Amino acid sequence: MDLTRLSLNQITMERLSLVEAILACQRHSIPHIGVWRHKLEGATLPRDTGVSVSSLCRGGMFPAATAAERQARIDDNLRAIDQAVGIGAPTLVLVCGPAPDRDIDAARSMVANGIAAIGDHARACGVRLGIEPLHPMFAGDRSVITSLAEANSLAIQLNVGIVIDTFHVWWDPDLYPQIARAAGRIVGFHVSDWLVPLPDVLLGRGMMGDGLIELRRIREAVESAGYHGPVEVEIFNRTIWDSDPDTVLTTMRERFEALV
Amino acid sequence: MDLTRLSLNQITMERLSLVEAILACQRHSIPHIGVWRHKLEGATLPRDTGVSVSSLCRGGMFPAATAAERQARIDDNLRAIDQAVGIGAPTLVLVCGPAPDRDIDAARSMVANGIAAIGDHARACGVRLGIEPLHPMFAGDRSVITSLAEANSLAIQLNVGIVIDTFHVWWDPDLYPQIARAAGRIVGFHVSDWLVPLPDVLLGRGMMGDGLIELRRIREAVESAGYHGPVEVEIFNRTIWDSDPDTVLTTMRERFEALV
Repeated sequence: MDLTRLSLNQITMERLSLVEAILACQRHSIPHIGVWRHKLEGATLPRDTGVSVSSLCRGGMFPAATAAERQARIDDNLRAIDQAVGIGAPTLVLVCGPAPDRDIDAARSMVANGIAAIGDHARACGVRLGIEPLHPMFAGDRSVITSLAEANSLAIQLNVGIVIDTFHVWWDPDLYPQIARAAGRIVGFHVSDWLVPLPDVLLGRGMMGDGLIELRRIREAVESAGYHGPVEVEIFNRTIWDSDPDTVLTTMRERFEALV
Repeated sequence: MDLTRLSLNQITMERLSLVEAILACQRHSIPHIGVWRHKLEGATLPRDTGVSVSSLCRGGMFPAATAAERQARIDDNLRAIDQAVGIGAPTLVLVCGPAPDRDIDAARSMVANGIAAIGDHARACGVRLGIEPLHPMFAGDRSVITSLAEANSLAIQLNVGIVIDTFHVWWDPDLYPQIARAAGRIVGFHVSDWLVPLPDVLLGRGMMGDGLIELRRIREAVESAGYHGPVEVEIFNRTIWDSDPDTVLTTMRERFEALV
Protein backbone atom coordinates (compact mmCIF):
# COMPACT_ATOMS: atom_id res chain seq x y z
CA MET A 1 0.00 0.00 0.00
CA ASP A 2 0.77 3.68 -0.18
CA LEU A 3 4.04 4.42 1.67
CA THR A 4 2.67 7.70 3.03
CA ARG A 5 0.80 5.59 5.57
CA LEU A 6 3.81 3.53 6.69
CA SER A 7 4.74 3.76 10.37
CA LEU A 8 7.67 2.06 12.07
CA ASN A 9 6.56 0.66 15.38
CA GLN A 10 9.65 1.09 17.45
CA ILE A 11 9.69 -2.46 18.82
CA THR A 12 10.66 -3.63 15.31
CA MET A 13 13.96 -1.78 15.91
CA GLU A 14 14.26 -2.66 19.58
CA ARG A 15 18.05 -2.15 19.68
CA LEU A 16 17.81 1.50 18.57
CA SER A 17 17.19 4.42 20.87
CA LEU A 18 14.19 6.62 20.13
CA VAL A 19 16.39 9.25 18.48
CA GLU A 20 18.18 6.63 16.37
CA ALA A 21 14.83 5.16 15.32
CA ILE A 22 13.46 8.56 14.28
CA LEU A 23 16.60 9.31 12.28
CA ALA A 24 16.32 5.89 10.62
CA CYS A 25 12.73 6.72 9.64
CA GLN A 26 13.94 10.01 8.18
CA ARG A 27 16.71 8.24 6.24
CA HIS A 28 14.21 5.77 4.75
CA SER A 29 11.39 8.27 4.16
CA ILE A 30 9.14 6.54 6.67
CA PRO A 31 6.67 9.26 7.66
CA HIS A 32 5.41 7.89 10.99
CA ILE A 33 6.69 6.16 14.10
CA GLY A 34 4.93 4.27 16.89
CA VAL A 35 6.76 5.00 20.13
CA TRP A 36 7.21 2.73 23.16
CA ARG A 37 7.19 4.15 26.67
CA HIS A 38 10.28 2.26 27.81
CA LYS A 39 12.22 4.11 25.09
CA LEU A 40 10.85 7.50 26.05
CA GLU A 41 12.62 7.83 29.39
CA GLY A 42 15.03 10.74 29.20
CA ALA A 43 14.81 11.04 25.42
CA THR A 44 14.54 14.42 23.75
CA LEU A 45 12.83 14.11 20.40
CA PRO A 46 14.67 15.74 17.51
CA ARG A 47 12.57 18.50 15.92
CA ASP A 48 11.54 19.05 12.32
CA THR A 49 12.44 15.54 11.21
CA GLY A 50 9.25 15.17 9.20
CA VAL A 51 8.45 12.03 11.20
CA SER A 52 5.16 12.15 13.10
CA VAL A 53 4.16 9.97 16.04
CA SER A 54 1.33 7.57 15.19
CA SER A 55 0.78 6.15 18.68
CA LEU A 56 2.24 5.55 22.10
CA CYS A 57 2.61 1.91 23.26
CA ARG A 58 1.42 1.07 25.78
CA GLY A 59 -1.08 1.69 28.51
CA GLY A 60 -3.22 -1.02 30.05
CA MET A 61 -2.20 -3.82 32.46
CA PHE A 62 -5.22 -3.04 34.62
CA PRO A 63 -5.91 -6.24 36.61
CA ALA A 64 -4.13 -6.62 39.93
CA ALA A 65 -4.73 -8.48 43.19
CA THR A 66 -5.50 -5.48 45.43
CA ALA A 67 -7.45 -2.24 45.09
CA ALA A 68 -4.27 -0.25 45.86
CA GLU A 69 -2.38 -2.01 43.10
CA ARG A 70 -5.22 -1.48 40.65
CA GLN A 71 -5.21 2.22 41.51
CA ALA A 72 -1.46 2.34 40.88
CA ARG A 73 -2.08 0.87 37.42
CA ILE A 74 -4.74 3.51 36.74
CA ASP A 75 -2.34 6.25 37.87
CA ASP A 76 0.29 4.87 35.54
CA ASN A 77 -2.19 5.02 32.66
CA LEU A 78 -3.00 8.64 33.48
CA ARG A 79 0.74 9.37 33.24
CA ALA A 80 0.84 7.52 29.91
CA ILE A 81 -1.90 9.79 28.58
CA ASP A 82 0.19 12.80 29.60
CA GLN A 83 3.21 11.28 27.89
CA ALA A 84 1.15 10.81 24.73
CA VAL A 85 0.29 14.49 24.82
CA GLY A 86 3.95 15.33 25.38
CA ILE A 87 5.12 13.59 22.21
CA GLY A 88 2.10 14.46 20.10
CA ALA A 89 0.78 10.90 19.91
CA PRO A 90 -2.91 10.90 18.96
CA THR A 91 -3.49 7.41 20.36
CA LEU A 92 -2.54 5.42 23.43
CA VAL A 93 -2.54 1.67 22.75
CA LEU A 94 -4.00 -0.39 25.59
CA VAL A 95 -2.62 -3.88 26.24
CA CYS A 96 -5.10 -4.77 28.91
CA GLY A 97 -3.14 -7.16 31.12
CA PRO A 98 -3.42 -10.71 32.52
CA ALA A 99 -5.37 -11.92 35.54
CA PRO A 100 -3.55 -11.81 38.88
CA ASP A 101 -4.90 -15.32 39.62
CA ARG A 102 -7.01 -17.99 37.88
CA ASP A 103 -10.17 -15.88 37.64
CA ILE A 104 -10.13 -14.57 34.08
CA ASP A 105 -13.70 -13.24 34.26
CA ALA A 106 -12.87 -11.08 37.28
CA ALA A 107 -9.80 -9.78 35.44
CA ARG A 108 -12.00 -8.79 32.51
CA SER A 109 -14.11 -6.69 34.88
CA MET A 110 -10.95 -5.04 36.23
CA VAL A 111 -10.02 -4.11 32.67
CA ALA A 112 -13.40 -2.49 32.08
CA ASN A 113 -13.14 -0.58 35.37
CA GLY A 114 -9.60 0.53 34.59
CA ILE A 115 -10.43 1.89 31.17
CA ALA A 116 -13.52 3.60 32.56
CA ALA A 117 -11.33 5.34 35.14
CA ILE A 118 -9.02 6.92 32.56
CA GLY A 119 -11.56 7.80 29.85
CA ASP A 120 -12.30 11.34 31.04
CA HIS A 121 -8.65 12.30 31.28
CA ALA A 122 -7.94 10.92 27.81
CA ARG A 123 -10.87 12.82 26.32
CA ALA A 124 -9.86 16.02 28.07
CA CYS A 125 -6.35 15.63 26.64
CA GLY A 126 -7.54 14.74 23.15
CA VAL A 127 -5.82 11.35 23.30
CA ARG A 128 -7.74 8.42 21.83
CA LEU A 129 -7.59 5.17 23.77
CA GLY A 130 -7.29 2.04 21.62
CA ILE A 131 -8.05 -1.40 23.06
CA GLU A 132 -5.80 -3.91 21.33
CA PRO A 133 -7.05 -7.48 21.59
CA LEU A 134 -4.04 -9.79 21.86
CA HIS A 135 -3.68 -13.30 20.47
CA PRO A 136 -5.21 -15.87 22.87
CA MET A 137 -1.75 -17.34 23.48
CA PHE A 138 -1.07 -14.20 25.56
CA ALA A 139 -4.19 -14.63 27.73
CA GLY A 140 -2.07 -15.88 30.63
CA ASP A 141 0.57 -13.19 30.73
CA ARG A 142 -0.39 -10.11 28.69
CA SER A 143 -4.08 -9.63 27.96
CA VAL A 144 -7.34 -11.20 29.01
CA ILE A 145 -8.89 -9.39 26.04
CA THR A 146 -8.29 -11.99 23.35
CA SER A 147 -10.72 -11.37 20.53
CA LEU A 148 -11.96 -8.52 18.43
CA ALA A 149 -15.53 -9.38 19.47
CA GLU A 150 -14.66 -8.81 23.11
CA ALA A 151 -12.64 -5.66 22.40
CA ASN A 152 -15.51 -4.27 20.34
CA SER A 153 -18.06 -4.88 23.10
CA LEU A 154 -15.79 -3.18 25.62
CA ALA A 155 -15.03 -0.27 23.29
CA ILE A 156 -18.72 0.32 22.62
CA GLN A 157 -19.54 0.12 26.33
CA LEU A 158 -16.77 2.56 27.29
CA ASN A 159 -16.81 4.73 24.20
CA VAL A 160 -13.15 4.24 23.30
CA GLY A 161 -11.27 2.99 20.23
CA ILE A 162 -9.89 -0.28 18.89
CA VAL A 163 -6.40 -1.15 17.65
CA ILE A 164 -6.25 -4.08 15.24
CA ASP A 165 -3.04 -6.08 14.82
CA THR A 166 -3.02 -8.73 12.09
CA PHE A 167 -0.79 -11.05 14.14
CA HIS A 168 -3.28 -11.13 16.99
CA VAL A 169 -6.52 -11.54 15.05
CA TRP A 170 -5.84 -13.32 11.73
CA TRP A 171 -7.02 -16.74 12.97
CA ASP A 172 -10.48 -15.53 14.05
CA PRO A 173 -13.43 -17.05 12.14
CA ASP A 174 -15.38 -13.94 13.11
CA LEU A 175 -12.65 -11.54 11.87
CA TYR A 176 -14.37 -9.71 9.01
CA PRO A 177 -17.75 -9.23 10.69
CA GLN A 178 -15.92 -7.88 13.76
CA ILE A 179 -13.79 -5.49 11.70
CA ALA A 180 -17.02 -4.19 10.16
CA ARG A 181 -18.52 -3.89 13.64
CA ALA A 182 -15.52 -1.75 14.69
CA ALA A 183 -16.34 0.80 11.97
CA GLY A 184 -15.64 4.32 13.14
CA ARG A 185 -13.78 3.12 16.24
CA ILE A 186 -10.52 1.87 14.73
CA VAL A 187 -7.69 4.14 15.91
CA GLY A 188 -4.71 2.01 14.95
CA PHE A 189 -3.72 -0.83 12.62
CA HIS A 190 -0.58 -2.99 13.02
CA VAL A 191 0.87 -5.46 10.55
CA SER A 192 3.37 -8.32 10.69
CA ASP A 193 3.10 -11.97 9.66
CA TRP A 194 2.48 -15.39 11.23
CA LEU A 195 5.37 -17.78 10.62
CA VAL A 196 4.96 -21.56 10.44
CA PRO A 197 6.15 -23.13 12.59
CA LEU A 198 5.92 -20.29 15.09
CA PRO A 199 9.55 -19.78 16.23
CA ASP A 200 8.66 -18.28 19.62
CA VAL A 201 5.56 -17.13 21.47
CA LEU A 202 6.79 -13.60 22.12
CA LEU A 203 9.60 -13.07 19.62
CA GLY A 204 8.34 -15.12 16.69
CA ARG A 205 6.55 -12.56 14.53
CA GLY A 206 7.49 -12.39 10.89
CA MET A 207 8.11 -9.77 8.24
CA MET A 208 5.12 -9.26 5.97
CA GLY A 209 5.12 -11.89 3.25
CA ASP A 210 7.06 -14.49 5.24
CA GLY A 211 3.95 -16.06 6.74
CA LEU A 212 0.30 -16.94 6.34
CA ILE A 213 -1.68 -13.79 6.99
CA GLU A 214 -3.95 -12.39 4.28
CA LEU A 215 -2.56 -8.90 4.87
CA ARG A 216 -4.13 -7.10 1.95
CA ARG A 217 -7.55 -8.56 2.57
CA ILE A 218 -7.46 -7.52 6.21
CA ARG A 219 -6.09 -4.06 5.35
CA GLU A 220 -8.89 -3.51 2.86
CA ALA A 221 -11.49 -4.56 5.43
CA VAL A 222 -9.98 -2.15 7.97
CA GLU A 223 -10.13 0.61 5.38
CA SER A 224 -13.74 -0.22 4.53
CA ALA A 225 -14.42 0.20 8.25
CA GLY A 226 -13.20 3.79 7.93
CA TYR A 227 -9.59 3.68 9.10
CA HIS A 228 -7.24 5.67 6.87
CA GLY A 229 -4.48 6.52 9.37
CA PRO A 230 -0.90 5.29 9.74
CA VAL A 231 -0.24 1.54 9.50
CA GLU A 232 2.40 0.42 11.98
CA VAL A 233 4.80 -2.40 11.24
CA GLU A 234 5.26 -4.07 14.61
CA ILE A 235 7.54 -7.11 14.57
CA PHE A 236 8.78 -8.73 17.77
CA ASN A 237 11.58 -10.88 16.37
CA ARG A 238 15.06 -11.42 17.71
CA THR A 239 16.54 -12.21 14.30
CA ILE A 240 15.27 -8.89 12.98
CA TRP A 241 16.60 -7.12 16.07
CA ASP A 242 20.03 -8.66 15.43
CA SER A 243 20.04 -7.63 11.74
CA ASP A 244 21.34 -4.43 10.19
CA PRO A 245 18.58 -1.82 10.69
CA ASP A 246 18.94 -0.29 7.23
CA THR A 247 18.60 -3.67 5.54
CA VAL A 248 15.47 -4.45 7.58
CA LEU A 249 13.91 -1.06 6.83
CA THR A 250 14.58 -1.40 3.10
CA THR A 251 12.83 -4.80 3.07
CA MET A 252 10.04 -3.44 5.24
CA ARG A 253 9.27 -0.63 2.81
CA GLU A 254 9.27 -3.00 -0.16
CA ARG A 255 7.04 -5.58 1.53
CA PHE A 256 4.67 -2.91 2.82
CA GLU A 257 4.23 -1.45 -0.65
CA ALA A 258 3.82 -4.83 -2.35
CA LEU A 259 1.85 -6.86 0.18
CA VAL A 260 -0.11 -4.78 2.69
CA MET B 1 -13.02 -35.70 40.46
CA ASP B 2 -13.99 -39.35 40.62
CA LEU B 3 -11.06 -41.54 39.50
CA THR B 4 -13.38 -43.96 37.71
CA ARG B 5 -13.53 -41.34 34.93
CA LEU B 6 -9.77 -40.86 34.60
CA SER B 7 -8.26 -41.66 31.20
CA LEU B 8 -4.59 -41.49 30.27
CA ASN B 9 -4.21 -39.92 26.87
CA GLN B 10 -1.25 -41.76 25.52
CA ILE B 11 0.62 -38.65 24.38
CA THR B 12 1.21 -37.85 28.06
CA MET B 13 3.41 -40.97 28.12
CA GLU B 14 4.86 -40.49 24.64
CA ARG B 15 7.97 -42.61 25.37
CA LEU B 16 5.92 -45.73 26.20
CA SER B 17 4.61 -48.20 23.66
CA LEU B 18 0.87 -48.83 23.62
CA VAL B 19 1.28 -52.06 25.57
CA GLU B 20 3.53 -50.39 28.13
CA ALA B 21 1.02 -47.56 28.52
CA ILE B 22 -1.88 -49.95 29.06
CA LEU B 23 0.09 -51.91 31.65
CA ALA B 24 0.98 -48.63 33.38
CA CYS B 25 -2.74 -47.77 33.52
CA GLN B 26 -3.45 -51.16 35.03
CA ARG B 27 -0.68 -50.70 37.61
CA HIS B 28 -2.10 -47.30 38.64
CA SER B 29 -5.79 -48.30 38.48
CA ILE B 30 -6.45 -45.88 35.63
CA PRO B 31 -9.57 -47.32 34.00
CA HIS B 32 -9.33 -45.70 30.53
CA ILE B 33 -6.78 -44.85 27.88
CA GLY B 34 -6.88 -42.51 24.86
CA VAL B 35 -4.91 -44.14 22.06
CA TRP B 36 -2.86 -42.44 19.32
CA ARG B 37 -2.73 -43.89 15.85
CA HIS B 38 1.04 -43.60 15.51
CA LYS B 39 1.34 -45.97 18.49
CA LEU B 40 -1.14 -48.45 17.08
CA GLU B 41 1.00 -49.72 14.20
CA GLY B 42 1.78 -53.37 14.77
CA ALA B 43 0.63 -53.35 18.38
CA THR B 44 -1.44 -56.20 19.80
CA LEU B 45 -3.52 -54.98 22.69
CA PRO B 46 -3.26 -57.10 25.83
CA ARG B 47 -6.63 -58.61 26.81
CA ASP B 48 -8.54 -58.44 30.05
CA THR B 49 -6.48 -55.63 31.49
CA GLY B 50 -9.55 -53.81 32.77
CA VAL B 51 -8.44 -50.73 30.78
CA SER B 52 -10.95 -49.51 28.21
CA VAL B 53 -10.22 -47.27 25.24
CA SER B 54 -11.84 -43.84 25.58
CA SER B 55 -10.93 -42.49 22.12
CA LEU B 56 -8.65 -42.77 19.13
CA CYS B 57 -6.49 -39.71 18.28
CA ARG B 58 -6.61 -38.57 15.60
CA GLY B 59 -8.48 -38.16 12.38
CA GLY B 60 -8.82 -34.89 10.53
CA MET B 61 -6.19 -32.95 8.57
CA PHE B 62 -8.69 -32.43 5.75
CA PRO B 63 -7.46 -29.35 3.83
CA ALA B 64 -5.02 -29.94 0.99
CA ALA B 65 -4.04 -28.19 -2.21
CA THR B 66 -5.52 -30.65 -4.71
CA ALA B 67 -8.71 -32.71 -4.97
CA ALA B 68 -6.65 -35.90 -5.14
CA GLU B 69 -4.81 -35.02 -1.96
CA ARG B 70 -8.06 -34.13 -0.20
CA GLN B 71 -9.48 -37.51 -1.21
CA ALA B 72 -6.38 -39.20 0.20
CA ARG B 73 -7.04 -37.45 3.51
CA ILE B 74 -10.66 -38.63 3.45
CA ASP B 75 -9.52 -42.18 2.74
CA ASP B 76 -7.12 -41.98 5.66
CA ASN B 77 -9.99 -40.89 7.91
CA LEU B 78 -12.10 -43.84 6.75
CA ARG B 79 -9.21 -46.10 7.77
CA ALA B 80 -9.02 -44.32 11.12
CA ILE B 81 -12.71 -45.11 11.71
CA ASP B 82 -11.97 -48.77 11.02
CA GLN B 83 -9.04 -48.62 13.42
CA ALA B 84 -11.32 -47.15 16.07
CA VAL B 85 -13.66 -50.10 15.61
CA GLY B 86 -10.70 -52.47 15.82
CA ILE B 87 -9.62 -51.26 19.25
CA GLY B 88 -13.10 -50.60 20.61
CA ALA B 89 -12.72 -46.81 20.68
CA PRO B 90 -16.17 -45.19 20.81
CA THR B 91 -14.84 -41.86 19.50
CA LEU B 92 -12.48 -40.63 16.81
CA VAL B 93 -10.99 -37.24 17.67
CA LEU B 94 -10.75 -34.88 14.68
CA VAL B 95 -7.88 -32.38 14.53
CA CYS B 96 -9.08 -30.64 11.44
CA GLY B 97 -5.84 -29.45 9.84
CA PRO B 98 -4.24 -26.21 8.59
CA ALA B 99 -4.77 -24.43 5.28
CA PRO B 100 -2.50 -25.50 2.40
CA ASP B 101 -1.99 -21.79 1.58
CA ARG B 102 -3.04 -18.39 2.94
CA ASP B 103 -6.78 -18.89 2.39
CA ILE B 104 -8.08 -19.89 5.80
CA ASP B 105 -11.74 -19.57 4.77
CA ALA B 106 -11.30 -22.02 1.90
CA ALA B 107 -9.58 -24.42 4.30
CA ARG B 108 -12.57 -24.21 6.63
CA SER B 109 -14.81 -25.30 3.75
CA MET B 110 -12.48 -28.21 3.04
CA VAL B 111 -12.83 -29.28 6.67
CA ALA B 112 -16.63 -29.22 6.41
CA ASN B 113 -16.52 -31.21 3.18
CA GLY B 114 -14.07 -33.71 4.64
CA ILE B 115 -16.14 -34.40 7.74
CA ALA B 116 -19.29 -34.68 5.63
CA ALA B 117 -17.56 -37.31 3.49
CA ILE B 118 -16.80 -39.62 6.44
CA GLY B 119 -19.99 -39.16 8.46
CA ASP B 120 -21.92 -42.08 6.98
CA HIS B 121 -19.11 -44.57 7.49
CA ALA B 122 -18.63 -43.43 11.08
CA ARG B 123 -22.34 -43.79 11.81
CA ALA B 124 -22.48 -47.22 10.15
CA CYS B 125 -19.54 -48.30 12.32
CA GLY B 126 -20.98 -46.82 15.51
CA VAL B 127 -17.95 -44.52 15.92
CA ARG B 128 -18.68 -40.98 17.08
CA LEU B 129 -16.70 -38.23 15.40
CA GLY B 130 -15.55 -35.44 17.71
CA ILE B 131 -14.40 -32.09 16.31
CA GLU B 132 -11.72 -30.72 18.63
CA PRO B 133 -11.20 -26.98 18.28
CA LEU B 134 -7.51 -26.23 18.79
CA HIS B 135 -5.96 -23.16 20.39
CA PRO B 136 -5.65 -20.31 17.86
CA MET B 137 -1.86 -20.54 18.09
CA PHE B 138 -2.19 -23.76 16.06
CA ALA B 139 -4.25 -22.12 13.29
CA GLY B 140 -1.22 -22.06 10.98
CA ASP B 141 -0.07 -25.65 11.33
CA ARG B 142 -2.69 -27.90 12.94
CA SER B 143 -6.28 -26.66 12.82
CA VAL B 144 -8.21 -23.89 11.18
CA ILE B 145 -11.01 -24.68 13.65
CA THR B 146 -9.93 -22.47 16.54
CA SER B 147 -12.94 -21.83 18.73
CA LEU B 148 -15.73 -23.75 20.35
CA ALA B 149 -18.24 -21.48 18.60
CA GLU B 150 -16.94 -22.54 15.21
CA ALA B 151 -16.70 -26.22 16.20
CA ASN B 152 -20.27 -26.11 17.49
CA SER B 153 -21.61 -24.60 14.29
CA LEU B 154 -19.82 -27.23 12.23
CA ALA B 155 -20.94 -30.07 14.52
CA ILE B 156 -24.57 -28.96 14.33
CA GLN B 157 -24.38 -28.61 10.55
CA LEU B 158 -22.81 -32.05 10.11
CA ASN B 159 -24.49 -33.84 13.01
CA VAL B 160 -21.25 -34.94 14.67
CA GLY B 161 -19.74 -34.47 18.14
CA ILE B 162 -17.39 -32.08 19.92
CA VAL B 163 -14.25 -32.76 21.94
CA ILE B 164 -13.37 -30.07 24.47
CA ASP B 165 -9.79 -29.64 25.68
CA THR B 166 -9.22 -27.14 28.48
CA PHE B 167 -5.80 -26.14 27.08
CA HIS B 168 -7.33 -25.12 23.76
CA VAL B 169 -10.40 -23.24 24.97
CA TRP B 170 -9.75 -21.78 28.44
CA TRP B 171 -9.04 -18.23 27.17
CA ASP B 172 -12.34 -17.86 25.29
CA PRO B 173 -14.67 -15.12 26.58
CA ASP B 174 -17.52 -17.12 25.06
CA LEU B 175 -16.46 -20.39 26.73
CA TYR B 176 -19.36 -21.15 29.07
CA PRO B 177 -22.16 -20.21 26.66
CA GLN B 178 -20.49 -22.37 24.00
CA ILE B 179 -20.11 -25.34 26.36
CA ALA B 180 -23.83 -25.02 27.09
CA ARG B 181 -24.52 -24.81 23.35
CA ALA B 182 -22.59 -28.08 22.88
CA ALA B 183 -25.02 -29.89 25.21
CA GLY B 184 -25.69 -33.42 24.03
CA ARG B 185 -22.85 -33.30 21.49
CA ILE B 186 -19.80 -33.54 23.74
CA VAL B 187 -18.06 -36.86 23.08
CA GLY B 188 -14.74 -36.19 24.78
CA PHE B 189 -13.14 -33.97 27.41
CA HIS B 190 -9.39 -33.42 27.80
CA VAL B 191 -7.57 -31.71 30.65
CA SER B 192 -4.12 -30.22 31.21
CA ASP B 193 -2.99 -26.77 32.35
CA TRP B 194 -1.69 -23.51 30.85
CA LEU B 195 1.75 -22.59 32.20
CA VAL B 196 3.00 -19.01 32.47
CA PRO B 197 5.18 -18.21 30.71
CA LEU B 198 4.29 -20.79 28.08
CA PRO B 199 7.49 -22.90 27.75
CA ASP B 200 6.80 -24.02 24.17
CA VAL B 201 3.99 -23.80 21.63
CA LEU B 202 3.67 -27.55 21.09
CA LEU B 203 5.36 -29.13 24.11
CA GLY B 204 4.50 -26.58 26.80
CA ARG B 205 1.35 -27.98 28.37
CA GLY B 206 1.29 -28.36 32.11
CA MET B 207 0.12 -30.88 34.71
CA MET B 208 -3.21 -29.90 36.24
CA GLY B 209 -2.66 -27.41 39.02
CA ASP B 210 0.61 -26.03 37.64
CA GLY B 211 -1.09 -23.32 35.56
CA LEU B 212 -3.98 -20.93 35.23
CA ILE B 213 -6.95 -22.92 33.99
CA GLU B 214 -10.13 -23.05 36.07
CA LEU B 215 -10.31 -26.82 35.62
CA ARG B 216 -13.10 -27.63 38.03
CA ARG B 217 -15.33 -24.84 36.76
CA ILE B 218 -14.91 -26.00 33.17
CA ARG B 219 -15.41 -29.67 34.14
CA GLU B 220 -18.63 -28.82 35.93
CA ALA B 221 -19.86 -26.86 32.90
CA VAL B 222 -19.05 -29.82 30.64
CA GLU B 223 -20.95 -32.11 33.00
CA SER B 224 -23.92 -29.75 33.07
CA ALA B 225 -23.89 -30.02 29.28
CA GLY B 226 -24.47 -33.75 29.66
CA TYR B 227 -21.00 -35.29 29.32
CA HIS B 228 -20.30 -37.97 31.90
CA GLY B 229 -17.73 -40.08 30.04
CA PRO B 230 -13.99 -40.54 30.52
CA VAL B 231 -11.83 -37.45 31.07
CA GLU B 232 -8.49 -37.73 29.29
CA VAL B 233 -5.33 -36.19 30.69
CA GLU B 234 -3.47 -35.07 27.57
CA ILE B 235 -0.16 -33.34 28.27
CA PHE B 236 2.32 -32.58 25.50
CA ASN B 237 5.40 -31.79 27.60
CA ARG B 238 8.98 -32.90 27.09
CA THR B 239 9.86 -32.65 30.79
CA ILE B 240 7.02 -35.00 31.62
CA TRP B 241 8.07 -37.34 28.81
CA ASP B 242 11.59 -37.42 30.27
CA SER B 243 10.36 -38.16 33.80
CA ASP B 244 9.75 -41.51 35.44
CA PRO B 245 6.32 -42.68 34.22
CA ASP B 246 5.21 -44.05 37.57
CA THR B 247 6.02 -40.77 39.32
CA VAL B 248 4.07 -38.83 36.70
CA LEU B 249 1.08 -41.15 36.90
CA THR B 250 0.99 -40.95 40.69
CA THR B 251 0.95 -37.14 40.51
CA MET B 252 -1.61 -37.23 37.72
CA ARG B 253 -4.05 -39.31 39.79
CA GLU B 254 -3.66 -37.03 42.80
CA ARG B 255 -4.12 -33.84 40.80
CA PHE B 256 -7.06 -35.27 38.88
CA GLU B 257 -8.83 -36.21 42.10
CA ALA B 258 -8.10 -32.90 43.84
CA LEU B 259 -8.38 -30.33 41.04
CA VAL B 260 -10.45 -31.50 38.07
